[in-house]
Amino acid sequence: MAQPVYFTPGPSELYPGVEEHIQAAMAAKLGSISHRSQQFKSIYAHAVTGLRKLLALPENYQILFLSSANEVWERAIQNTVERESFHLVNGAFSERFFEISGELGRSATKYKVPDGEGFDVAQINVPTTAELIALTQNETSTGASMPVADIHLFREKASPEALIFVDAVSSVPFPAFDYTKIDAAYFSVQKCFGLPAGLGVWLLNERCIQKAELLLQKGLSIGSYHSIPSLLKKALSNQTPETPNVLNIYLLGQVVEAMNQKGLDLIRQETELKARLLYTFLETSKTFAPAVKEAAHRSLTTIIATTHLPASEVNNFLAPHHMVVGSGYGQNKETQIRIANFPAHTVDHVKALISSLHALDLA
Amino acid sequence: MAQPVYFTPGPSELYPGVEEHIQAAMAAKLGSISHRSQQFKSIYAHAVTGLRKLLALPENYQILFLSSANEVWERAIQNTVERESFHLVNGAFSERFFEISGELGRSATKYKVPDGEGFDVAQINVPTTAELIALTQNETSTGASMPVADIHLFREKASPEALIFVDAVSSVPFPAFDYTKIDAAYFSVQKCFGLPAGLGVWLLNERCIQKAELLLQKGLSIGSYHSIPSLLKKALSNQTPETPNVLNIYLLGQVVEAMNQKGLDLIRQETELKARLLYTFLETSKTFAPAVKEAAHRSLTTIIATTHLPASEVNNFLAPHHMVVGSGYGQNKETQIRIANFPAHTVDHVKALISSLHALDLA
Repeated sequence: MAQPVYFTPGPSELYPGVEEHIQAAMAAKLGSISHRSQQFKSIYAHAVTGLRKLLALPENYQILFLSSANEVWERAIQNTVERESFHLVNGAFSERFFEISGELGRSATKYKVPDGEGFDVAQINVPTTAELIALTQNETSTGASMPVADIHLFREKASPEALIFVDAVSSVPFPAFDYTKIDAAYFSVQKCFGLPAGLGVWLLNERCIQKAELLLQKGLSIGSYHSIPSLLKKALSNQTPETPNVLNIYLLGQVVEAMNQKGLDLIRQETELKARLLYTFLETSKTFAPAVKEAAHRSLTTIIATTHLPASEVNNFLAPHHMVVGSGYGQNKETQIRIANFPAHTVDHVKALISSLHALDLA
Repeated sequence: MAQPVYFTPGPSELYPGVEEHIQAAMAAKLGSISHRSQQFKSIYAHAVTGLRKLLALPENYQILFLSSANEVWERAIQNTVERESFHLVNGAFSERFFEISGELGRSATKYKVPDGEGFDVAQINVPTTAELIALTQNETSTGASMPVADIHLFREKASPEALIFVDAVSSVPFPAFDYTKIDAAYFSVQKCFGLPAGLGVWLLNERCIQKAELLLQKGLSIGSYHSIPSLLKKALSNQTPETPNVLNIYLLGQVVEAMNQKGLDLIRQETELKARLLYTFLETSKTFAPAVKEAAHRSLTTIIATTHLPASEVNNFLAPHHMVVGSGYGQNKETQIRIANFPAHTVDHVKALISSLHALDLA
């Protein structure tokens, strides 16, 4: 049976070559090797070295492997917030990070705008007592995106001690962050890296590490096996505290190597081209319209449209075309569709999708 | 290149058919499906239903998917211990569970015997104030095992409110627990289920769930996305709070189905036969000897031997025979070898290993 192309916002279409990499991993029995072996350490180092190169990550940043972005939220609060975090909220995932801070007993405050809207950064007063500022570069639930230039303004807006955390779960490696203007960013491999789910990646600088050590020195609990110091100690010898998702770390290294060969410039250019094609279609469609009104706040990697036809019927129409789009998130399940524009999606994929959605317009 | 048979104590040899199941998963594009889709819910239900059948799990037990056994330790303490846990310690992993309780700010006490020894249960006084009693059915670091009958004695020894947690990370589905005598057990899929690593499985009854709810009602933090109530709410609709390791949940369902077809009785008989062959050899070997002196306390699934020849040299000798054993744990890295006796290891595998180790004896 012909399988569809997945435009779902993650898990999504796998990056080209992933199936072959899995076959190679099986042939080499990577599912059986010890996570303390030199062979594993080399696999780990390959993924980390490749990511450092792809993202041009400064030397003061470390890369940590966790099990999901949900886990990064929890570990971030546990390890870097003694009392208070501050959250820019414009969708379900930024709201969830806010909630998690409260569930962990911290005082969390938020600046909230309606779903589908971006932020007028000049309007936002950052509490001087906030220890962590949670920004969401790409809100996967609404398709709203913060321009990177806006993110970079928060270093000046926040107190000097505050740590600036950026949710880029469904956009890395696209956003060109100035890593001196933020302190941490994180993503999941089942989004733009086109991998099976089960791995979250946390980029963080020495300021986050120092904060975790400070809380520990104060006698506060910062968790256990996945505290920053515990993760870091193992990371420095290319390992994890627990037995990790070895296969996904291997696959991440392979995909990152392929991305480095292709070049991030080209990946970004293609992302912009595909996004332009999609938004241009949505703006003229009879059935669909961009869910985010203001063009400057529209995500280029997770493109969300309101739909007159229920989302389930859109997918029924697309099924014989062998394509799937994501339904809307939460209460927008049937009133919106979500279209992933990830590096695994080729220009031809996107043109074919637009052609099919256009046919739906005419049907 | 011919790949070795992995007798390492996990990750280890993959269960027969896993490679084909991965190929089938790739052909069906299971790496791309949504973790909120009906297709995923069916995969989840298949794994859970199969596990319930394999383990003859009573209806008052729930099955939760976490990322590792390390995570189960942390979630167990967070969710079911307000003040105090009590740990039977006879190796690195039982010690680590003890440490984690302290790192999470609880008062942890332990009853410790030297590595390689079992417990004389009659000697152990369980503190009446302990809320969680941590038993280790199979200590993967030392090869010591608690007889199931000894585990079952703790219900009477502990206070009625205490929860009895059993680490069976590297032994499930072998131990025939009376689930009315314990409250939770947990394992990792890269051990006896012969899967790639990246998934911990937690079996727990309503008493654990009620304790978590009680702590929450008291205003205590029990974590966030992976608190028991959060996990349970999603589990009841065959989902997880985060995007999980979908591929491993699928593979677990397939392996469990194969184990159900084979029958747990036969798996247990083969485990006992292979263990008998291995221990009989070790007892007569010139190079090796069972690390656990008392036969009643020897693990049947992770068999550990002291070795006169450094473990690395044992593996050098085995390499041309296409076999790998585990090195000793921690400070025993070179002075012990660890031999996994998991369902993926056939009687013929074990006979061939013994034949090679016997040749080493004669060399």
